[in-house]
Amino acid sequence: MASVEEERTTTGWAARDSSGILSPYTYTLRDTGPEDVYIKVLCCGICHTDIHQARNQLGMSHYPMVPGHEIVGEVVEVGSDVTKLKVGDVVGVGLVVGCCSNCNPCKTDNEQYCNKKIWTYSDVYSDGKPTQGGFAGAIVVNQKFAVKIPDGMAPQQAAPLLCAAVTVYSPLRKFGLNASGLRGGILGLGGVGHMGVKIAKAMGHHVTVISSSDKKRQEALVDIGADEYLVSSDAAKMQEAADSLDYIIDTVPVFHPLGPYLPLLKLDGKLILLGAIETPLQFLSPMILLGRKTITGSFIGSMKEMEEMLTFCKEKGVTSIIEVVKMDYINKAIERLEKNDVRYRFVVDVAGSNLDQ
Amino acid sequence: MASVEEERTTTGWAARDSSGILSPYTYTLRDTGPEDVYIKVLCCGICHTDIHQARNQLGMSHYPMVPGHEIVGEVVEVGSDVTKLKVGDVVGVGLVVGCCSNCNPCKTDNEQYCNKKIWTYSDVYSDGKPTQGGFAGAIVVNQKFAVKIPDGMAPQQAAPLLCAAVTVYSPLRKFGLNASGLRGGILGLGGVGHMGVKIAKAMGHHVTVISSSDKKRQEALVDIGADEYLVSSDAAKMQEAADSLDYIIDTVPVFHPLGPYLPLLKLDGKLILLGAIETPLQFLSPMILLGRKTITGSFIGSMKEMEEMLTFCKEKGVTSIIEVVKMDYINKAIERLEKNDVRYRFVVDVAGSNLDQ
Repeated sequence: MASVEEERTTTGWAARDSSGILSPYTYTLRDTGPEDVYIKVLCCGICHTDIHQARNQLGMSHYPMVPGHEIVGEVVEVGSDVTKLKVGDVVGVGLVVGCCSNCNPCKTDNEQYCNKKIWTYSDVYSDGKPTQGGFAGAIVVNQKFAVKIPDGMAPQQAAPLLCAAVTVYSPLRKFGLNASGLRGGILGLGGVGHMGVKIAKAMGHHVTVISSSDKKRQEALVDIGADEYLVSSDAAKMQEAADSLDYIIDTVPVFHPLGPYLPLLKLDGKLILLGAIETPLQFLSPMILLGRKTITGSFIGSMKEMEEMLTFCKEKGVTSIIEVVKMDYINKAIERLEKNDVRYRFVVDVAGSNLDQ
Repeated sequence: MASVEEERTTTGWAARDSSGILSPYTYTLRDTGPEDVYIKVLCCGICHTDIHQARNQLGMSHYPMVPGHEIVGEVVEVGSDVTKLKVGDVVGVGLVVGCCSNCNPCKTDNEQYCNKKIWTYSDVYSDGKPTQGGFAGAIVVNQKFAVKIPDGMAPQQAAPLLCAAVTVYSPLRKFGLNASGLRGGILGLGGVGHMGVKIAKAMGHHVTVISSSDKKRQEALVDIGADEYLVSSDAAKMQEAADSLDYIIDTVPVFHPLGPYLPLLKLDGKLILLGAIETPLQFLSPMILLGRKTITGSFIGSMKEMEEMLTFCKEKGVTSIIEVVKMDYINKAIERLEKNDVRYRFVVDVAGSNLDQ
């Protein structure tokens, strides 16, 4: 590792253009400011958003771009004013690394909704320099946006919790859906969906996985532990399940009709969308009026919820199902993720890929 | 009035077919059962739903149909088991006159969401006979579905509260939006919208009327008492108002885009739809994800909320703005209501129209 006196660099894997193909890229890290922690990255999960960003599908990409926002690393240096972390701590960093601290969302521990939030990568930091993500040897982050990983939780296990898990945990908590005994549905069984099943089960819910085909029945019920499996094209079963769910967590990241799912909700049931979809979604107003149903959405979680979720997962023994790969496999991993050919999250073993050597 | 020994009839104004034109129609009323009250109708408001039903626009109409579901009348006879009302009470009847009493909505005082609810008219009662509404000399109703009008509240004033007002009051209470100091928007300034402004003001809210044109500015601000008036085509003002509202009550009963209104909501803001619209409404998921916004809907209110709302309106001095007409004006009134040519609710002076003489 470089000393603080000289300019510090790290090597990551960056996309250079909207092809989204990643290759090694060496860049300068900022000095560790008073509130910053300097983190050696241990591993980093691959999320669908990384693909969208690398390929400029959200129209807000800056290149070169080192993606990665399910980052687990070890603190190797702390700034003079850092109080909550110390050298040697294993910490996590998610999708956001900065916020204004003054707006209503910031003041109410909802900083993920700050209009001036700074994304972990493909954004510009307060020093005017580009932010770069976790597929790199190191990252410097304000202590507010680093969360301590509970002792005894494996770094590779923790990585998918920092985005996939908190994205589900946050709305369940926020909308008062964390009481035991509720009946929930999980639509879509990818990285987020599989964490959804596990977290909802750990909250004591009866969990139904809803899918367009019968393909994932076995893994949903056996490998992940769902209680029921419902195929949306099975009209008779869908009819039977009408009026039975307190909520549906909808993880589908592409256009899909909402009409088949709204009737599954009970009075006051909630359809919680997690996917940012560019095509307008549609619904008939009588389907929500008659049952006072809610269509809502949620975006990752706050740092406070991140801490709470990690403690919850530790206590309840919630783990992610992952496939660990090395850095030089990332383009192949992205290709496979796109085809949903992963059970359920790729995690890149960054430290084991020796990027900074 | 007829005695209980003979078959009792009443005369109402009924639609005979989907032309929706109403004309006099005499029919039999059921005997006053143990739980029933026999009500001489004093007056009845005209709601958009009456038009939809009279014209079979919801595809569920039975003819001949006497519409009317903002009914105020005087109890002239009570059944042997009636405890909550007595002869001489002035009572209100809304859109629902029966429910199963056994389902979850019924058991939680949400009987308006019972799947077996019986509509006040154009439905079939538990005795197998058609239900008929309030544009008639009399109506027999189970005591559960009659609410006492507070002493000192004028019957004609009370009529629009029984549907228009409770439709707004219920979701504001249910969604925790009745605390003072909130900022609300009211979209559409008809019968329901004008009650929305008045009820929200009485709750201590800062109320913005949102309209497609400048036409109703004066009446919204002066006659009804809104705090602000926002024209949705004024891009600069809409931009200024972004992120400012805790909720929007959307009373528009026809297709309209939701995109312009969602950005007006703050973090956790709620768009509450009250109109049953046959064309699918659309939204972009990122507009609700990034701000954890909610699209929801609500349908009238429970009998418990009806009581509570009447007490609230009495205490706060909330009144409706009405135009009182006689029964033989109803077809003209419907025609005018359709063109929104009423400030803001027609109330038919049924007793003064001497239908049963």
